[in-house]
Amino acid sequence: MPFQPAFQDIAHLGHVELFTPKPEESLAFFTNIVGLHESGCQGDSVYLRAWGDYEVYSLKLTAAQTSGMGHVAFRTKIAEVLTQLVDYLTKQGVTGTWLDSEYGHGPAFRVASPDGHPVELYYETARFVPPPALAPGFKNQPQRYIPHGIAPRQLDHINILAQDVQANRVFFHELLGLRVTEQIIFDDGTEVGAWLACTIKSHDFTITQDRSNARGRFHHLAYFMDSREDVLRAADILVENSVAIETGPHKHTIGQSFFLYCYEPGGNRFEAVAGGYLILAPDWQPVVWTQAERAKGQAWGLQTVQSCHTYGTPPVE
Amino acid sequence: MPFQPAFQDIAHLGHVELFTPKPEESLAFFTNIVGLHESGCQGDSVYLRAWGDYEVYSLKLTAAQTSGMGHVAFRTKIAEVLTQLVDYLTKQGVTGTWLDSEYGHGPAFRVASPDGHPVELYYETARFVPPPALAPGFKNQPQRYIPHGIAPRQLDHINILAQDVQANRVFFHELLGLRVTEQIIFDDGTEVGAWLACTIKSHDFTITQDRSNARGRFHHLAYFMDSREDVLRAADILVENSVAIETGPHKHTIGQSFFLYCYEPGGNRFEAVAGGYLILAPDWQPVVWTQAERAKGQAWGLQTVQSCHTYGTPPVE
Amino acid sequence: MPFQPAFQDIAHLGHVELFTPKPEESLAFFTNIVGLHESGCQGDSVYLRAWGDYEVYSLKLTAAQTSGMGHVAFRTKIAEVLTQLVDYLTKQGVTGTWLDSEYGHGPAFRVASPDGHPVELYYETARFVPPPALAPGFKNQPQRYIPHGIAPRQLDHINILAQDVQANRVFFHELLGLRVTEQIIFDDGTEVGAWLACTIKSHDFTITQDRSNARGRFHHLAYFMDSREDVLRAADILVENSVAIETGPHKHTIGQSFFLYCYEPGGNRFEAVAGGYLILAPDWQPVVWTQAERAKGQAWGLQTVQSCHTYGTPPVE
Amino acid sequence: MPFQPAFQDIAHLGHVELFTPKPEESLAFFTNIVGLHESGCQGDSVYLRAWGDYEVYSLKLTAAQTSGMGHVAFRTKIAEVLTQLVDYLTKQGVTGTWLDSEYGHGPAFRVASPDGHPVELYYETARFVPPPALAPGFKNQPQRYIPHGIAPRQLDHINILAQDVQANRVFFHELLGLRVTEQIIFDDGTEVGAWLACTIKSHDFTITQDRSNARGRFHHLAYFMDSREDVLRAADILVENSVAIETGPHKHTIGQSFFLYCYEPGGNRFEAVAGGYLILAPDWQPVVWTQAERAKGQAWGLQTVQSCHTYGTPPVE
Repeated sequence: MPFQPAFQDIAHLGHVELFTPKPEESLAFFTNIVGLHESGCQGDSVYLRAWGDYEVYSLKLTAAQTSGMGHVAFRTKIAEVLTQLVDYLTKQGVTGTWLDSEYGHGPAFRVASPDGHPVELYYETARFVPPPALAPGFKNQPQRYIPHGIAPRQLDHINILAQDVQANRVFFHELLGLRVTEQIIFDDGTEVGAWLACTIKSHDFTITQDRSNARGRFHHLAYFMDSREDVLRAADILVENSVAIETGPHKHTIGQSFFLYCYEPGGNRFEAVAGGYLILAPDWQPVVWTQAERAKGQAWGLQTVQSCHTYGTPPVE
Repeated sequence: MPFQPAFQDIAHLGHVELFTPKPEESLAFFTNIVGLHESGCQGDSVYLRAWGDYEVYSLKLTAAQTSGMGHVAFRTKIAEVLTQLVDYLTKQGVTGTWLDSEYGHGPAFRVASPDGHPVELYYETARFVPPPALAPGFKNQPQRYIPHGIAPRQLDHINILAQDVQANRVFFHELLGLRVTEQIIFDDGTEVGAWLACTIKSHDFTITQDRSNARGRFHHLAYFMDSREDVLRAADILVENSVAIETGPHKHTIGQSFFLYCYEPGGNRFEAVAGGYLILAPDWQPVVWTQAERAKGQAWGLQTVQSCHTYGTPPVE
Repeated sequence: MPFQPAFQDIAHLGHVELFTPKPEESLAFFTNIVGLHESGCQGDSVYLRAWGDYEVYSLKLTAAQTSGMGHVAFRTKIAEVLTQLVDYLTKQGVTGTWLDSEYGHGPAFRVASPDGHPVELYYETARFVPPPALAPGFKNQPQRYIPHGIAPRQLDHINILAQDVQANRVFFHELLGLRVTEQIIFDDGTEVGAWLACTIKSHDFTITQDRSNARGRFHHLAYFMDSREDVLRAADILVENSVAIETGPHKHTIGQSFFLYCYEPGGNRFEAVAGGYLILAPDWQPVVWTQAERAKGQAWGLQTVQSCHTYGTPPVE
Repeated sequence: MPFQPAFQDIAHLGHVELFTPKPEESLAFFTNIVGLHESGCQGDSVYLRAWGDYEVYSLKLTAAQTSGMGHVAFRTKIAEVLTQLVDYLTKQGVTGTWLDSEYGHGPAFRVASPDGHPVELYYETARFVPPPALAPGFKNQPQRYIPHGIAPRQLDHINILAQDVQANRVFFHELLGLRVTEQIIFDDGTEVGAWLACTIKSHDFTITQDRSNARGRFHHLAYFMDSREDVLRAADILVENSVAIETGPHKHTIGQSFFLYCYEPGGNRFEAVAGGYLILAPDWQPVVWTQAERAKGQAWGLQTVQSCHTYGTPPVE
């Protein structure tokens, strides 16, 4: 039987590369305020990880002319699946390029989403080995928990913007096997948002409509906190550091997670998120939200702030 | 290529049947104190579910001479995998029996664990459809959240006792594809505990050593709470209802979850659990705890209470 | 030395009487959704209390033509202080009336605030004695904690509206001895809000400006929750019961408490609140917020919703 | 009418002086792990405070031959009350000494408890004025919240040991006006524990029986956390720093607070505490616990660890 991409062939979201025109300020934000740990640096990039990330990095921060996402990378469940996915993509007419091993992982196959976002697939990776000072007190976590800054546990998900949500949703669902968990479909049939998952989490990857004419833009990346109290504490930390909170803490209707949004100095949106639900049903059917339902705002009635609908990176000229 | 059971072929723990010599008291405990909802009853059994369980039931409570586990059931990821698993088990010499559809799910294949625990595999299921009074305010959850009693979200995991942990771990790992996430191996090489998962949760199914000569016994079933605060609140509710807490609230070293144990009136152990970690690494290697490490007690130093090592159901004559 | 009202002469906020044009719906809201307990009823009034209130009631719900506050009552620290306060008020030209004992407490002296709000002072009270079914598992709390509805611990504070905040603040501060903890004073010198306390809590009684021409109106009453998680849970309970949340959960800038607002069916605003700070300094100086500071919204940047500035009860014709 | 000490004449627990034979390690513990801030140092002492303490210090750490409490200090509600209390104490035959102003506060009157603990009373104090780097984002808190270490909000209470609990309870209640909130009285009439409060908190000062023959010993000092989640987080931080937790996190039966105990390197016991209840009733009657009730352990059934009954500082020869 020929290979068909299936749910969980992609094991998880691996890392994100963010471009920043203010690399020093962005780095200071992610290390001092968010509390990520620096793993290393190469060229114009610094590699960062949260204390619970098992790989060497989950965030690659790259100095650039503007903001936005450099690329997003997913790790396949086994080496063989990477090969099979690449073959499959090629047969489906998706053009891609093999990239040599780089800092923290082995060869990656890079393709573009229908909207032009660079997407990498890889399997071989470098597991983080803590130096003695970071050896964990709890053997089943990758490193010591350091209560410095917001201190999230691990990378949770990203949200890209797309001119055509449906085309991108089809790409990630049908060609990469992600599960579609929730969708927003407006009265005229336009799909304006799609939540997808590699795992039983409610989402690892979100696509929402870009209301500008730009392509390949980025909405946000989210790091996971263990509790909603942690998100509330993060809000205080942001205020104490004069970082404006765009919205929240509040509960997302979609995904039921507890979140807040702010911007890192380079302009990219950052989310601290906790909670949400796990999907055990293997035959889960996407929950589809209507235009009227979305007009009700977030879970407890907070209207979605306008900038959430319009602001993405890089900025539109 | 011939079928080999793989991780995630079993989608999730479906339900547990508990025997109780005090059916009315057990039912009152699970509905009034735990806050589960009764879906229906048939013969000597009552079917119960938590507000977040998507199937018609996660707990079958059956009047019996004594306590213990009637059976545990797992749902496969697709119908085809059920057939393949049954074929595979048969080829491996595991004898089983097909059971007709029963309340809440389709045909199930019943086998015995090496220790004699009845284990069922099924795919076809009945999704819970809420009556109007239980229609959820949040469309992406199966029913309304009713703040009555402890009110856990969903079934989380069970823990069986076994004379030979290793043999049982091999059975669930090699024949059913569960991932081994953590283990306790004593200095003489004896495996005294194995934590396994169908999902990226740190465990859905645990096997620990039975220090009596009995076989097929049960340690506990656990329902999932959204927050550690919920577990703390559950402790108050138990005290207010004169239900003795065996141990906790505390943090498990293994799984890092926050928990408490108590007994339902029929004698079976019940756990309320929150938190824990998700395993994203597809190539996770089991974390192995030594005898010395276990001697340190639970995560924050609380010694594991003796009854946790010795008490199981049904009681040993 | 002649008697001068001092901080802590008033021991605490005792109870509030709310008028409601929809007495049955209001009662259902406070008992089923908020989870208060009915202590008794007399005439057009029902008396309610939270599980942690030590007196027989903290809320008197009275059927009336419209909404609003019937009266607010404060308990003095000793019987003698009640007499002294009454003498003092009389000498200061404040006219009042002694009312006979009523349900739940002894004689009360009723005066009007400068804005016309009925205010009662009393000392003799009826301590709640739990019936066996409500006997607490924890001897140091007045009754059993029943996890039904939002289930707040106790009455926390109220907020009245006034045409002249300053005049009312002076009345409660100078004549009744409440401590002024925080204030909002606009650029033109107008005091638009004053937070006062009988206790070391940041506030027990708030006065904010009524932007209508009405007098004697009511802004909200607040019940105290033990944790911010409880307020988040309350938000879910409200949504599940189709009660619109006016704003929150969020953190108040003033008082630093975590809160949400909604309306009971009779139209009065209800707050669930947790956290906040305690004031140990006996020589605390009021924290004064400027117009510009208030324009920044609540603690994490959420703009105060317009209805919070304009809506009070009873409605303005 | 002659002056009689009354509840709330003492405004609050001001600070504690701890002796430590390992001053550097103790300082590192309180600054790096607990997250207190150093205000200054003089001679053999370092002065520390939590981010929410309004005075210049709440902990004076003094290098000494052994561990134990140097003294405890209480602030009166007004200057006049200090004079009145000193007169009253003198008339009652309590010998004391006026001490000159020292770092952080004005003249203090030092007396000894019946068990020999040095107790100071003062009114004039130095309010903490944050340097620019510590200026708070929230104007109503004394300084910026810095998420470093456990980061408690403020000093909460202390617990001394006494040969004769009753005599000491009478001293603090009758001569200093503290309210007795809870007591443990054994079957033979011996008072083995007394919880007292200067404020509406359930306790600011605790006296428990010293089972050794020593006098003037110390049980623990406690810092307040805003939430129970913060105490759970503190437990992780202690484990990550290899500080053994003596007991907890758990819920105290008395006071209903959520706590954990550990030892600072000098040997003194440290508590992180959250929650508990406020006492609004001005005529609160002490809750008296019997020997049988205490034998049930802490709130959720955890047996009080033996060291809690026997370990105090300084150690008994």
